Amino acid sequence: MANDVLDDVEEGLDARRVTAVLDAVEAGDSPRLNALLEPLHAADVADLLEQISADDRNALLGMWSGEIDGDILSEISDAIREEVIDALPPEVVAEAVRDLDTDDVVDILEDLEEPAQAVILSALTSADRLAVEQALSYPEYSAGRLMQREVVVAPVHWTVGEMIDHLRVADWLPEQFYHVILVDPRMKPVDYVTLGRLLSSRRDVALKDIVEESFRTIEATEPEADVAYMFNQYHLISCPVVDAHDRLVGVITIDDAMNVQDEEHQEDMLRMAGVDDEATLADTVWEATKGRALWLFVNLLTAILASMVIDMFAQTISQMVALAVLMPIVASMGGNAGTQSMTVAVRALATRDLTAQNAGRVIRREIAVGAINGAVFGVIMAGVASFWFGVPLLALVIGLAMLFTLMAAALGGIVIPMALERMKIDPALASGPFVTTVTDVVGFFAFLGLASWMLL
Amino acid sequence: MANDVLDDVEEGLDARRVTAVLDAVEAGDSPRLNALLEPLHAADVADLLEQISADDRNALLGMWSGEIDGDILSEISDAIREEVIDALPPEVVAEAVRDLDTDDVVDILEDLEEPAQAVILSALTSADRLAVEQALSYPEYSAGRLMQREVVVAPVHWTVGEMIDHLRVADWLPEQFYHVILVDPRMKPVDYVTLGRLLSSRRDVALKDIVEESFRTIEATEPEADVAYMFNQYHLISCPVVDAHDRLVGVITIDDAMNVQDEEHQEDMLRMAGVDDEATLADTVWEATKGRALWLFVNLLTAILASMVIDMFAQTISQMVALAVLMPIVASMGGNAGTQSMTVAVRALATRDLTAQNAGRVIRREIAVGAINGAVFGVIMAGVASFWFGVPLLALVIGLAMLFTLMAAALGGIVIPMALERMKIDPALASGPFVTTVTDVVGFFAFLGLASWMLL
Repeated sequence: MANDVLDDVEEGLDARRVTAVLDAVEAGDSPRLNALLEPLHAADVADLLEQISADDRNALLGMWSGEIDGDILSEISDAIREEVIDALPPEVVAEAVRDLDTDDVVDILEDLEEPAQAVILSALTSADRLAVEQALSYPEYSAGRLMQREVVVAPVHWTVGEMIDHLRVADWLPEQFYHVILVDPRMKPVDYVTLGRLLSSRRDVALKDIVEESFRTIEATEPEADVAYMFNQYHLISCPVVDAHDRLVGVITIDDAMNVQDEEHQEDMLRMAGVDDEATLADTVWEATKGRALWLFVNLLTAILASMVIDMFAQTISQMVALAVLMPIVASMGGNAGTQSMTVAVRALATRDLTAQNAGRVIRREIAVGAINGAVFGVIMAGVASFWFGVPLLALVIGLAMLFTLMAAALGGIVIPMALERMKIDPALASGPFVTTVTDVVGFFAFLGLASWMLL
Repeated sequence: MANDVLDDVEEGLDARRVTAVLDAVEAGDSPRLNALLEPLHAADVADLLEQISADDRNALLGMWSGEIDGDILSEISDAIREEVIDALPPEVVAEAVRDLDTDDVVDILEDLEEPAQAVILSALTSADRLAVEQALSYPEYSAGRLMQREVVVAPVHWTVGEMIDHLRVADWLPEQFYHVILVDPRMKPVDYVTLGRLLSSRRDVALKDIVEESFRTIEATEPEADVAYMFNQYHLISCPVVDAHDRLVGVITIDDAMNVQDEEHQEDMLRMAGVDDEATLADTVWEATKGRALWLFVNLLTAILASMVIDMFAQTISQMVALAVLMPIVASMGGNAGTQSMTVAVRALATRDLTAQNAGRVIRREIAVGAINGAVFGVIMAGVASFWFGVPLLALVIGLAMLFTLMAAALGGIVIPMALERMKIDPALASGPFVTTVTDVVGFFAFLGLASWMLL
């Protein structure tokens, strides 16, 4: 029976395997649990731990703690890592982290409380501990936290043969490396050589004759978002990290940059929707509630502001209820058009496509787009209103209000993120409330103002 | 003067360099233009071409066409590539593409019209042309389109020494490769060896003794989004691609996967905001207008639907205008809470964290979050309404309406994306209109319905 399950499921994580794992946990069947988890990649084991409930997770860890290795610990999301580490015997944690590269240890450590940090630090060799403590001295979310300290270097004057001989006798090499970094006597990186070129060159070739044009370095204090941008923009595979004195202190590899790019995207997406940017599915009800309440509160304030605009025209509405029926349409269309422009702007700022150079042209384009769509939907809506309520002037009012609102939405949607970026405020985080306020206030004011002027 | 500009600006692309470039173009100063562009990375030249206006771009290409190489062409965004290729003499294009790896040629070709495709295909060697045509026979956005055909393989029985000798005499190697793929006599990939292991092992070591555990293959027909997920999930650096008979047909490297991940992000973000997912800043007014009109039209329909709900209660509103003043607050809060849940759901579906396994628990959590925030903001809003209009029952009505609407928003925000995903419809694309409809209709119906029941 246990074998059936194993033969049928694919290698990766799927719903059937998760169910089988939970069955094995409930039955207390350790061998079966082991057989089910053993073939999984560490990343899939981590996903499984995140997907199951806290109770199931604790039960599973209780039965399987001995098998938790460093790779699994480093794959687990920050949201539950502390909980998992607390559930494990300290010696298991110590054993697990000992095999990891220092960048992974740093990644695990930085989100832990002091006592758990101490357990892990004391498990490391003194060289590793020093390396980890130095990395932790760099600012959070900086290149210094992201880099691994283990680097493969060579003096600039070496040949291919010397390099290969050196690598063959090295008692330890990083798990992954893609370049040999050439350094001057002060440990300043000056060039690098790909392993492919090294392998395909004759032994007597000088390293400095086969260096890559793509060579560049990153300062340890640079934000990790800039690191990810740089890797993607320049197709880097690995990049040496230097300190303030241009001395080599580590190397960042593309898999870490890809991971940062993914996290940055998640952050942008959640921030634009007004969700706490570290939200995960493993958050408790309480954490998730808190993580959304702030934005709802800001939204409440902008909504009340918009209502105060409506209140100014209460008299007008009481004379013509059709205005109350139609006014949400204007605000809704404005809100959507504003979100469209804002999203284009936030994305273009993140990819550095929107610059001082082309800002003027892009703003003009957005206003033109707002004017055309405003005119088109103004005409459509005028037709609908005229058919619905049979008041030609009302049709004119909603048509004009739509035009004004969509133009204001386009303008606000592009200018607000740009202004925030210039003030060093993340446009993904803060644009939404401002844009909504603009579109709501302009929408209600234009529609109800025109109505009280033209209709009554 | 020209030298001043050059000395001062940094190596990358910044506003000052762009301005200097435009000045040089206007002055017809070719040597200066060359001096300004020559030090730039191809990716930065491409960004510059994207940022300047169409007229400036044409003028620049006219002066600088001879320097456009394959790297620049492959960095240029799809949006303006056709225009750039049309502006270049055919022999420049032919020369430019000849140096590229086949995956980059495919990337350029797939978005061009037939005549431009023919120009490029005829410039390739017959072997390259065959490779490109084979790649184009795979579906768009598949692994087959993404892979490069140039692979470095070895028979499984080779030693490190044999491999190195083979690489040293190879007359051609891919620009970038990170593994040697071991194949059986049928060209089925069975394992791979990192170049680091190859370099650090003695010549007599058998390749099959230093293979990597991370080895896995991708089918050529798999969607590129799955490829990006796999690279990020399993920290792959390169991955062999196989055909339906498990034969090696190419290899995908992580830089391409990182690029796909970035494009997928952009697509998700734009789709969630209702913008054409291929929108760029280089789009004309007309393209941008079209790319947003469809979603505005869908939004107009949902807004009219919501207005019809309001119209059902026109009688009630005419008796108490305060309802018209307050009702947008309920709808706005519902819309925001719905967007929050929806964004969490869309993101979790994209990262495969939300599965059949934990769906029930996540839905329950969302409803609980909606209920708590609904209660909190219901009480706050009841206080505001009571202070504003002095009608205690009105305060009760808006409080209850807020509670119902935020619960409905939470439920809709999580269930709708999950249902769409199950129906194989991209939740990022289609969730918005449905969620908005739910929150608007429930919001207006709950508030106005309770009001007409309890207040009149």
